[in-house]
Amino acid sequence: IQSKLPHTGTTIFTVMSKLAEEHNAINLSQGFPDYDCDPKLLSFVTEAMQKGFNQYAPMPGLPALRELIAEKVSNLYGANYHPDTEITITAGGTQAIFTALSSCISSGDEVIIFEPAYDCYAPTVKLLGGLVKPYELAPPNYEIDWEMVKKLFTANTKMIILNSPQNPTGCILSEKDIKALIKLTKNTDILILSDEVYEHIIFDNNKHQSIALYPELRERSFIAASFGKLLHATGWKLGYCLAPEKLMKEFRKVHQFNVFSVNTPMQLGIANYLKDAGTYMGLSSFFQQKRDFFRKLLAETNFNLLPCNGSYFQCVSYGHLSEEKDTDMAIRLVKNYGVASIPVSAFYTRNPDHQVLRFCFAKKQETLEKAVERLMKL
Amino acid sequence: IQSKLPHTGTTIFTVMSKLAEEHNAINLSQGFPDYDCDPKLLSFVTEAMQKGFNQYAPMPGLPALRELIAEKVSNLYGANYHPDTEITITAGGTQAIFTALSSCISSGDEVIIFEPAYDCYAPTVKLLGGLVKPYELAPPNYEIDWEMVKKLFTANTKMIILNSPQNPTGCILSEKDIKALIKLTKNTDILILSDEVYEHIIFDNNKHQSIALYPELRERSFIAASFGKLLHATGWKLGYCLAPEKLMKEFRKVHQFNVFSVNTPMQLGIANYLKDAGTYMGLSSFFQQKRDFFRKLLAETNFNLLPCNGSYFQCVSYGHLSEEKDTDMAIRLVKNYGVASIPVSAFYTRNPDHQVLRFCFAKKQETLEKAVERLMKL
Ligand SMILES: CSCCC(=O)C(=O)O
Ligand SMILES: CSCCC(=O)C(=O)O
Repeated sequence: IQSKLPHTGTTIFTVMSKLAEEHNAINLSQGFPDYDCDPKLLSFVTEAMQKGFNQYAPMPGLPALRELIAEKVSNLYGANYHPDTEITITAGGTQAIFTALSSCISSGDEVIIFEPAYDCYAPTVKLLGGLVKPYELAPPNYEIDWEMVKKLFTANTKMIILNSPQNPTGCILSEKDIKALIKLTKNTDILILSDEVYEHIIFDNNKHQSIALYPELRERSFIAASFGKLLHATGWKLGYCLAPEKLMKEFRKVHQFNVFSVNTPMQLGIANYLKDAGTYMGLSSFFQQKRDFFRKLLAETNFNLLPCNGSYFQCVSYGHLSEEKDTDMAIRLVKNYGVASIPVSAFYTRNPDHQVLRFCFAKKQETLEKAVERLMKL
Repeated sequence: IQSKLPHTGTTIFTVMSKLAEEHNAINLSQGFPDYDCDPKLLSFVTEAMQKGFNQYAPMPGLPALRELIAEKVSNLYGANYHPDTEITITAGGTQAIFTALSSCISSGDEVIIFEPAYDCYAPTVKLLGGLVKPYELAPPNYEIDWEMVKKLFTANTKMIILNSPQNPTGCILSEKDIKALIKLTKNTDILILSDEVYEHIIFDNNKHQSIALYPELRERSFIAASFGKLLHATGWKLGYCLAPEKLMKEFRKVHQFNVFSVNTPMQLGIANYLKDAGTYMGLSSFFQQKRDFFRKLLAETNFNLLPCNGSYFQCVSYGHLSEEKDTDMAIRLVKNYGVASIPVSAFYTRNPDHQVLRFCFAKKQETLEKAVERLMKL
């Protein structure tokens, strides 16, 4: 069999988590909490199962959950997404992204990706016959020069992928960025795929620049979101996609043949829990505390801290310490120091190495303490 | 936006289930049980959640579950699939099929599909730029003439999709069929995608002809399987894919970017339940009883019963009663008689109408009784 993705290996997350396990290292590589989610949430799922909600959900998702999402998006971003036609529940944010791309990227289409970028975008575009046009950003601030973006435009530019708060950098898009994007894409039909899975994890009173805030953009945008991040339950693989009806129609054509529908009792449990909990707003301060705690500890190490404005990832650079490649450094940290991280070069198509590592701080205080204790020796 | 699937509407399952709901009809259309799954199974899932198994599973699935599958496949079919490299847990059988196709079908590849066929195969092949080569089978027995299959072969034939027990017909492949297939594809590298989601629902002591039984075929086959059917929990969307390492490697390249991984507590709950339950073998007799009960009732109606050797679907024909198209008949049955079925023409690319309807009998006895009471009036 001829590979459709000859240059694709196993994701860095699998590689590093496995290495962490093998060396019994503290795993700050793959992004997931090491503490429990709310027992109330579990009770709601159990209740849904026991009440017999164990058969196929409707293809776009349970109406109760879609209605809650519509309400939230309206409250937070002033956008009206109709639950019947513009919201679809997915098996995680990744499936939302894969399905959105599958529904509109064809052979020869060009997709602009800001790098470092979450590692599913580029291979999915390639799988679909699309062309990745990477725009490489650099530490410490990974700012986008929108004049440079313009230079990437061709007649085949089909889509721009955004991700704010950004994984792996923890950077966020500002209102100025979005305004520049609007100006740049005015009178084009360039689509936007906005990966907003960390929308509720944003620090220092910054406002999340959801594409949903901007009517000019949302009419040609897919937005991917995640319940796993919101609920500290990354293993449940529940998320959703927002898009205007004409895009969502195409999305669902693929969705119905990709997964058809998504876990019923988990959907209902989440819906009932969110109805009860009422608010999404505690998450930023929860993680800001962790960020501040972790940064304070890290400041005592020899690493240089990069900014972190959102997400649950903190990047550090070490170029002043050694010439070592970031992959080598990451492996050495696991093997010799017992701490797993992600080398940020893994998030670039051409692997430029800025000697930056990403740590996940969605961890218990004592986990972060123990990890930094080990990193102090470096 | 230009549609990649301009001729694809909403699946017939969504259409008929919605119509059934609107008219408060008994829903024998979409295939799912109307009775509860084993409470013990639910307890195992709850236990997994409470023990904190709520974060990402390994990308290919929980080792415990993959090992159980390997054991089962070895016991039942004498095939050794290595859990590390040849078994991947998926978000349902459909996702296994979509991902298998995505991993190997490229522009111009031809895929032979036996029709009537489950409705996700053809659009997925088209989405990938492939060409569907339908081989239309006819009631009452829907037999395959393998000489006719040979005539469909071209230099571009990439894959044959099999499905036994077959949805929607309830027909099964015989050893003779498989032998013919082996002969036909010997010395070719034509791939097989074998949709075996009803493998454990097969009647009258027939033996399920899994591709896993045949070394000559399994070395170039994907097999899709379903826990939803096995455990009466179609809404959990858990299944798996079996393939030899060289194919599974390509499958996982796509899987990791499509869904990355699958619901952790459900995987663990299923693994612990299956360890406890020990056997897969009760399902056929459970459903054979339902089939026999349903057929006996239906024999009193004006419909003609078609054979049913597996799956939980019973087809009937009514060509002797009316000229009506099967879609019209199905709609009339919902509206005037309060019973929802699936018109089998929906499972053909070119929609030939043999005036056949499909009923799902994964239902309580009283549901089947009430439905046939209504159908008696026809
Ligand atoms: C889907 S595994 C990767 C988890 C994650 O989002 C990350 O670590 O970046
Ligand atoms: C995935 S919805 C359809 C369920 C089913 O397998 C069927 O009714 O054929």
